[in-house]
Amino acid sequence: MDPASAFMSGPRMTSKSPVEEPATSAPLSSGPLAGLRILELGHFVAAPFAARLLADLGAEVIKVEPPGGDPVRQWGEQVNGASLWWSMHGRNKLSISLDLKKPRARDIVLGLAAQCDAVIENFRPGQLERWGLGAEALRRVRPDLVIAQISGYGQNGPHRDRPAFGVIGEAVGGLRYLTNRSDPTGEPPVRVGISIGDSAAGLYAALGVVAALWKRDRDGRGRTIDVALSEAVLSLMEGMLPEYGALGKIKQPTGSAIATAAPSNAYPTADGAWILIAANSDPLFRRLAQLIGRPELADMQKYVGNAQRVRNAEELDGIIADWSRQRPSREIFDELDGASIPASFIYTAADCAADPQFRARGMVREVVDPLHGQVLHAGIVPHVPEDPGSIRWAGPALGEHTEPILRDVLGLGAAEMNDLRREGVI
Amino acid sequence: MDPASAFMSGPRMTSKSPVEEPATSAPLSSGPLAGLRILELGHFVAAPFAARLLADLGAEVIKVEPPGGDPVRQWGEQVNGASLWWSMHGRNKLSISLDLKKPRARDIVLGLAAQCDAVIENFRPGQLERWGLGAEALRRVRPDLVIAQISGYGQNGPHRDRPAFGVIGEAVGGLRYLTNRSDPTGEPPVRVGISIGDSAAGLYAALGVVAALWKRDRDGRGRTIDVALSEAVLSLMEGMLPEYGALGKIKQPTGSAIATAAPSNAYPTADGAWILIAANSDPLFRRLAQLIGRPELADMQKYVGNAQRVRNAEELDGIIADWSRQRPSREIFDELDGASIPASFIYTAADCAADPQFRARGMVREVVDPLHGQVLHAGIVPHVPEDPGSIRWAGPALGEHTEPILRDVLGLGAAEMNDLRREGVI
Repeated sequence: MDPASAFMSGPRMTSKSPVEEPATSAPLSSGPLAGLRILELGHFVAAPFAARLLADLGAEVIKVEPPGGDPVRQWGEQVNGASLWWSMHGRNKLSISLDLKKPRARDIVLGLAAQCDAVIENFRPGQLERWGLGAEALRRVRPDLVIAQISGYGQNGPHRDRPAFGVIGEAVGGLRYLTNRSDPTGEPPVRVGISIGDSAAGLYAALGVVAALWKRDRDGRGRTIDVALSEAVLSLMEGMLPEYGALGKIKQPTGSAIATAAPSNAYPTADGAWILIAANSDPLFRRLAQLIGRPELADMQKYVGNAQRVRNAEELDGIIADWSRQRPSREIFDELDGASIPASFIYTAADCAADPQFRARGMVREVVDPLHGQVLHAGIVPHVPEDPGSIRWAGPALGEHTEPILRDVLGLGAAEMNDLRREGVI
Repeated sequence: MDPASAFMSGPRMTSKSPVEEPATSAPLSSGPLAGLRILELGHFVAAPFAARLLADLGAEVIKVEPPGGDPVRQWGEQVNGASLWWSMHGRNKLSISLDLKKPRARDIVLGLAAQCDAVIENFRPGQLERWGLGAEALRRVRPDLVIAQISGYGQNGPHRDRPAFGVIGEAVGGLRYLTNRSDPTGEPPVRVGISIGDSAAGLYAALGVVAALWKRDRDGRGRTIDVALSEAVLSLMEGMLPEYGALGKIKQPTGSAIATAAPSNAYPTADGAWILIAANSDPLFRRLAQLIGRPELADMQKYVGNAQRVRNAEELDGIIADWSRQRPSREIFDELDGASIPASFIYTAADCAADPQFRARGMVREVVDPLHGQVLHAGIVPHVPEDPGSIRWAGPALGEHTEPILRDVLGLGAAEMNDLRREGVI
């Protein structure tokens, strides 16, 4: 079985303009996952993000979209009726448009699944079954299929049928409670600013799919990867559960500080900016004390050791702020950088885009998008220097690959495709 | 080659009490990654978290610790001098204590690496080379080794030598700027409350390791996985870069709202709690409008379609808040839940611990820890129902497995171990 079918050298090479790549770039379809084919039955963020991670690492991803397209095509800022986010969110994928409410669409999905290594989906639990596309049906055509299912609360349990978006998963997982000042003064905790619950779930799903495929190659069996947004978040909560269980301690928001390490905070500067300083180890703190002209602090009992500094963090932060407040942020940063003390400005989009380190590593790069011209994308994570993958194309038009997929993967002819089009299946 | 050595049935079975598992539990060492052996040269959060994710899925992880132990053993709340976080952070791992400054420790690490599938490390770039443990040395003893390296800014580029912690990566990746109110009034943006930059980097590293091992089994070649905290964060920033590149738009903090979807916010309740409601699709909004006794809203031009609702979100949020403010949160939640509208309370640690869904799925469970008795852990993500992995033991004591590892993996005898101990190597 060769999962990298002849199709991969078909539309892939011709349907899109070449993409600017950094010098380390490898040939098309490079990346450690080249040779895998993934079927995405996803929408919004979590499942499409999981599939994109795999596509960035070289997998071929076939994304099934409803006739109206993935809603993210309309999210955020638009140019010419197409969202800029989509340019990145949909990149490296093949788009086939299918109306899953039609029975013949189901047959097409089953035909595709038979030729895929994994399916990734994030419909409400039970929805695929209602379309005749549940795990049993999928495994009938592909017994060793890996099936990843992302949902708000998981595929079983008393709350499995509750609907959820990322913000809900973030709240239920315990994260949202913490994004607040230590004295909230009647304001709710802020959102993280991105759909972190969706992204975390997508990362876990991608990890699970590859782990299951590694094992499939050894024992020939498919596996199910069941990821809940709420659980993906809960898994990141560090000592929250053990500390509650043993001590009844309810982890509290701490504003811009860290409850477990000091000094680490955002400090004011003379030009009105904030600078982050993380000098939370004994040698780092000694260097910082020296730098701010208070070397004696490093030997004071109340500041020796992280635990003592945490206990006296407010006072310590005040001393550091008294120093930083009188200096311009650039000067502060340069001094800290010179002393190898972890520090940074709080980057905006513009700072990220201009950052020489991101540029040098291809983490901020221009990608040619037929709809938008040059578009700024984040690069591929993780870097795999021997086999780096590539941004082969930007998010495709809805159904851009419907015909080549039906022709090259399923072997359909022009007449059959006309029928499907007439019936509104594709 | 049988990566699951005889050692796996050695200390693993006897050194720890059995652990309570949910009914779906499989035998010891289950999980899709059973059969892999990983060497962790990690400390703090990112690399240890990556290795724990693999251990949770069944891999054998050997964690090398300095004589003082991983600093996380001292982070957060302690009982009997041991941190509760460590119980979870170190679980499912074997701990060997080695002073890497001693040349004989280097030989031991090389001996272990020769019998491992992958190494995961998060020292400053160049540190392993200084110890004679760089990629070249490691691959001399194990040519197909996968090597994952996590750092603040990456293994090359102009900023590679800058030190960083999670908070720095979060700021440089553009996340920290967003965790603020839309009118910050002189306050810095809050920290997310967890080391999300470390966790995201750990997830990417785990994904990269398994992807590289999947490919190694096909082409026999090792690969390097180079993950930067800042890049792991930047990769999650959704439309931020494309929108800045095309329109010069700098993504701004939006407090508890979402810039791209409405209505979705935290709303006040009569009992002083906040409730999250995410009714940001046409059918959801229609149901919400009905529920709050304002069905006509769903047909008003300014609220039809997500884009229009986003434009008029503040007014819309005011209408919803007027409704929610007069009702107790429990009643609101039950009504929303009954109408299948995504909603939730903002969970604290106590809410997470008591949640019936988490309990039903084994995502909150008691684990026996010899140091602490029963400790509350988060379960394993992702769920793999056919092959779920297990929590085999809680975070081990420092060096708890030094002797069995040296004996069973490297074949050292008692005399050699005494030498090593006398020389302070182990």
